Amino acid sequence: MPREAARELADLGQQLRVDAVRAAAAADSGHPTSSMSAADLAAVLLARHLHYDFDDPDHPGNDRLILSKGHASPLLYAMYRAAGVVDDAELLTFRRRDSRLEGHPTPRLPWVDVATGSLGQGLPVGVGMALAGKRLENAPYRVWVLSGDSEMAEGSVWEAAEHAAYEHLDNLTLIIDVNRLGQRGPTRHGWDLDAYARRLAAFGWHTIEVDGHDVEAVDAAFAEASATRSQPTAVIARTRKGRGVAQVEDREGQHGKPLPDADAAIEELGGPRFVRVEVSPPPAAPARRHPAGGPPELPRFEAGDSVATRDAYGQALAALGSAREDVVALDGEVGDSTRTEFFAKAHPERYFECYIAEQQLVAAAVGLQARGYVPFAASFAAFLTRAHDFVRMAAVSRAGINLVGSHAGVAIGQDGPSQMGLEDLAMFRAVHGSTVLYPCDANQTAQLVAEMAELTGVRYLRTSRGGTPVIYGPDEEFRPGGSKVLRSTGRDRVTVVAAGVTVHEALRAAELLDREGIDVRIIDLYSVKPVDAETLREAAEATGCLVTVEDHRVQGGIGDAVAEAFADGRPVPRLVRLGVQHMPASASPEDQLHLAGIDAESIAAAVRLLVERAVVR
Amino acid sequence: MPREAARELADLGQQLRVDAVRAAAAADSGHPTSSMSAADLAAVLLARHLHYDFDDPDHPGNDRLILSKGHASPLLYAMYRAAGVVDDAELLTFRRRDSRLEGHPTPRLPWVDVATGSLGQGLPVGVGMALAGKRLENAPYRVWVLSGDSEMAEGSVWEAAEHAAYEHLDNLTLIIDVNRLGQRGPTRHGWDLDAYARRLAAFGWHTIEVDGHDVEAVDAAFAEASATRSQPTAVIARTRKGRGVAQVEDREGQHGKPLPDADAAIEELGGPRFVRVEVSPPPAAPARRHPAGGPPELPRFEAGDSVATRDAYGQALAALGSAREDVVALDGEVGDSTRTEFFAKAHPERYFECYIAEQQLVAAAVGLQARGYVPFAASFAAFLTRAHDFVRMAAVSRAGINLVGSHAGVAIGQDGPSQMGLEDLAMFRAVHGSTVLYPCDANQTAQLVAEMAELTGVRYLRTSRGGTPVIYGPDEEFRPGGSKVLRSTGRDRVTVVAAGVTVHEALRAAELLDREGIDVRIIDLYSVKPVDAETLREAAEATGCLVTVEDHRVQGGIGDAVAEAFADGRPVPRLVRLGVQHMPASASPEDQLHLAGIDAESIAAAVRLLVERAVVR
Repeated sequence: MPREAARELADLGQQLRVDAVRAAAAADSGHPTSSMSAADLAAVLLARHLHYDFDDPDHPGNDRLILSKGHASPLLYAMYRAAGVVDDAELLTFRRRDSRLEGHPTPRLPWVDVATGSLGQGLPVGVGMALAGKRLENAPYRVWVLSGDSEMAEGSVWEAAEHAAYEHLDNLTLIIDVNRLGQRGPTRHGWDLDAYARRLAAFGWHTIEVDGHDVEAVDAAFAEASATRSQPTAVIARTRKGRGVAQVEDREGQHGKPLPDADAAIEELGGPRFVRVEVSPPPAAPARRHPAGGPPELPRFEAGDSVATRDAYGQALAALGSAREDVVALDGEVGDSTRTEFFAKAHPERYFECYIAEQQLVAAAVGLQARGYVPFAASFAAFLTRAHDFVRMAAVSRAGINLVGSHAGVAIGQDGPSQMGLEDLAMFRAVHGSTVLYPCDANQTAQLVAEMAELTGVRYLRTSRGGTPVIYGPDEEFRPGGSKVLRSTGRDRVTVVAAGVTVHEALRAAELLDREGIDVRIIDLYSVKPVDAETLREAAEATGCLVTVEDHRVQGGIGDAVAEAFADGRPVPRLVRLGVQHMPASASPEDQLHLAGIDAESIAAAVRLLVERAVVR
Repeated sequence: MPREAARELADLGQQLRVDAVRAAAAADSGHPTSSMSAADLAAVLLARHLHYDFDDPDHPGNDRLILSKGHASPLLYAMYRAAGVVDDAELLTFRRRDSRLEGHPTPRLPWVDVATGSLGQGLPVGVGMALAGKRLENAPYRVWVLSGDSEMAEGSVWEAAEHAAYEHLDNLTLIIDVNRLGQRGPTRHGWDLDAYARRLAAFGWHTIEVDGHDVEAVDAAFAEASATRSQPTAVIARTRKGRGVAQVEDREGQHGKPLPDADAAIEELGGPRFVRVEVSPPPAAPARRHPAGGPPELPRFEAGDSVATRDAYGQALAALGSAREDVVALDGEVGDSTRTEFFAKAHPERYFECYIAEQQLVAAAVGLQARGYVPFAASFAAFLTRAHDFVRMAAVSRAGINLVGSHAGVAIGQDGPSQMGLEDLAMFRAVHGSTVLYPCDANQTAQLVAEMAELTGVRYLRTSRGGTPVIYGPDEEFRPGGSKVLRSTGRDRVTVVAAGVTVHEALRAAELLDREGIDVRIIDLYSVKPVDAETLREAAEATGCLVTVEDHRVQGGIGDAVAEAFADGRPVPRLVRLGVQHMPASASPEDQLHLAGIDAESIAAAVRLLVERAVVR
């Protein structure tokens, strides 16, 4: 590199530092020192390696940049200023109300694909994007992930490291800003770059150790990364936190706060600069097209047959994949249980095995949706809790992903509580903008799989292990936010609200009660969120009392969802909730439902008690 | 080893296989093939390396054995039979209702410290136990973790690997049963033992590769592991799934099901055996004593001062640590934010830095409580979602742990949604047997910290970043399941139920409304679970309408908790819930509360609307 070019790069690094300091000063908060350590890395990347058309963020050839150390957002915004897409006035709106320049980056900015700020998520999501480029699009783009050193302690990083190497993602570069200081003090490995290199190399990565403030060395490292074939590359850069300002450089206690004297710091950094970087355009790449295709030819199930909803899920997903080329499926090494294997057989090229790594499973889905795909990722409902933080961040990313949890509830039987999804509805209901679906029969499941593919946000489908009777015809329609009144007379004394396996228990309970002359209304609340407040309200007005029954904890699930429907200040019906209140052990599915007090007999008993106590008409 | 001894060990291995096959056959379910691959490893461990008094599971010198591959429970139960503590009749109750021999091991068995069945949790929890032995007890016991190969894909394993090596846990041995077959097919690395060895060695472990069916080699490996100093050891054993029965050995499609022909298999394995193993007793070790100490000298805060509840937490925890020697604290590299640093300064020997690895943070706490300690583990509330599956399994383990989530809600301000705990109450409410506390002032926080240490199960405390006015005296008492009526007249028209920051907003709203002649009752619902149904019921009867207001999603939190209090079939008051319904961005704390509609003005507006609409008296 000519000396002049190196000087310009170093100068750009200083500009990025100055702007990070200025933004944090204007906000009176933020993470300038974490930005300053990575400024030279960012300068070299922006000026010489990133291929990106800022005017066309959707350009199919654009590289992707993920700032995994999202707290260094001032650096990212300084890069945008240098690229000419954020002006100086906007830079100084950092962290203000209504500014796009949030404390941590979010896709409110057109150049940000996914939100960051929960550490250890950038690489996992980047793997999803790189998989799309490599396996689906055959596109020329590279994925660059700029990570901190502290976040290398997150297990999710190692799930991703394994996944990336196994899939030979040579279009992926991880840049580690080893500034040796975490939030509260030194990291485990300090400046021992080799500690990171040894680990990543053992996981199958190509590794390059470099002085992160030597722009020529960094430039060479990035070039080497881009030229490396069949392996992802990690550029492990020794840097100094707060680099360039003596008062804070490499000092503890300077994390996450503006510089003590911003004006002096800016002067020390050489004063404000206004270098405008011409970012290299992306190579030509064909726009990806997914012909619309017709509606999916969903499987059709015979009324009265016993079919597990997980089976219906697998078949419907395979059918959806035939109709839509943008549908992809991900498995956490339980595809034979979740029935994702049906999709794997039909569409192996769009099937991604993530092995037993649920964080990576969800992260890869988030990465794939960022490239325009419609991912379905499935594991046991219980084990999706492993990925809770990724689901939470997916919502912040405005990501559209479909998650499917099988083996819901005590109804799985003998395997016992470790395998039972009993908290999943609570987890997914609380996710912003989520949809939560819980079908009770095979035809309903198939319809809902097709429906959920069309939604935005985080969509969750809960499936069951054992067979349940098919009670709906294959042409019956179901929609998110809907419900079905399965049984109703003019004389209903109580309404039973159920979903999934408890729908069938409720129907049996109604038969038991019918013999005693007690009529009950039954609602199949297959859409737990949004919840069908109107139908519930009608039932409340007709019967005055609702019994909810769910194969889930009584907190956060169907009981809570029904209560939420009545939280509008209008009169509320009497409510009783049946759900799993004990710690289950091994037992047959039938025994489990009985022991949990959510089987037909328990429902009938609850209704009888209400009627006898004359608290209902 | 004499040939006869080797023959006996091999024979014991066959017995364990036979018993695993028999148990699964009796249950008509279970995982015999996963048991058979590890049977020789288990035989050598039980007969020659484990030091354990089965009659005294609490013996302080007992080794700890964690079956991380919990689905291989038939193997564990076969070991118990060989040790003479489970008889043959009980062995055949495997997976039956009321049997202690559950599908996956739980502490209902006195020799099981923690439940397993969610893969990748055994090592993380084992690290906690080994830390106790090494750093706190100076005890002679070893921790043995028997793991599958598939579960090495879980990031949590690598968080634990890092933690164990960093802490030089040479009292910890990981045994990896590399049978090359996962649930649905081959693992990523098959029989490439070196793939595992390279990774673990890079993380700082001593590694030994061995033929897992060569009992002499296994014996030597375990001896080497025990003799290794200053490093944890991994014994990486090549095995064959279903070993010993040709019909299933090393075959795909044989996971998690009884053998096709159990009688023939037992014959092929040499028929039933009744070898009784004399397990080596533990070395003498002094019983650990924690003198009772007096009540903690909790910090006392002045009414009217502004103090962050996280500060009160840190001070109270340090005080608790002074009063109780069994209290330990764990940090996820945010101790300066959560204020766990106060404890670190006061009691550095009982402080555990887990770096940015929240799964390991919670797992280590579970391991420490299994050794009798009272752990407090803290991170941002948002990031505890990372450990959801560990919290779920802690409940299955009947573990007593205290978890503290700071930086709750939109009230953190500028940092934005990635850092805001908005789903944590939903997550913790749905955990079986949990307690969920959310204090609004410093004195309340201090009291609740002392209270929670005395409870069983998973206890969660939610703290806030910013200062809140001290409104309670230092001698006021608070108890889990309680609440405080902060304002009440005979003319209250609406009850406002708040907790944490919204208590102060509610008090301000009451002042606004007071000027308009509208009296409101205010309840500080600091115990979100259990919830004070009685006080809520009284308020409902007095005012007919309750407005809940929370700095959390409207699903799963305080609104749902209040609704749950009225799910007893009796009349329900009108309910309105205010909570965070949008995706927040950066803004000042005050603006955040306003934008979320949970500030004083929003509360007052909601009350006014109810009064004007005359839906309340």
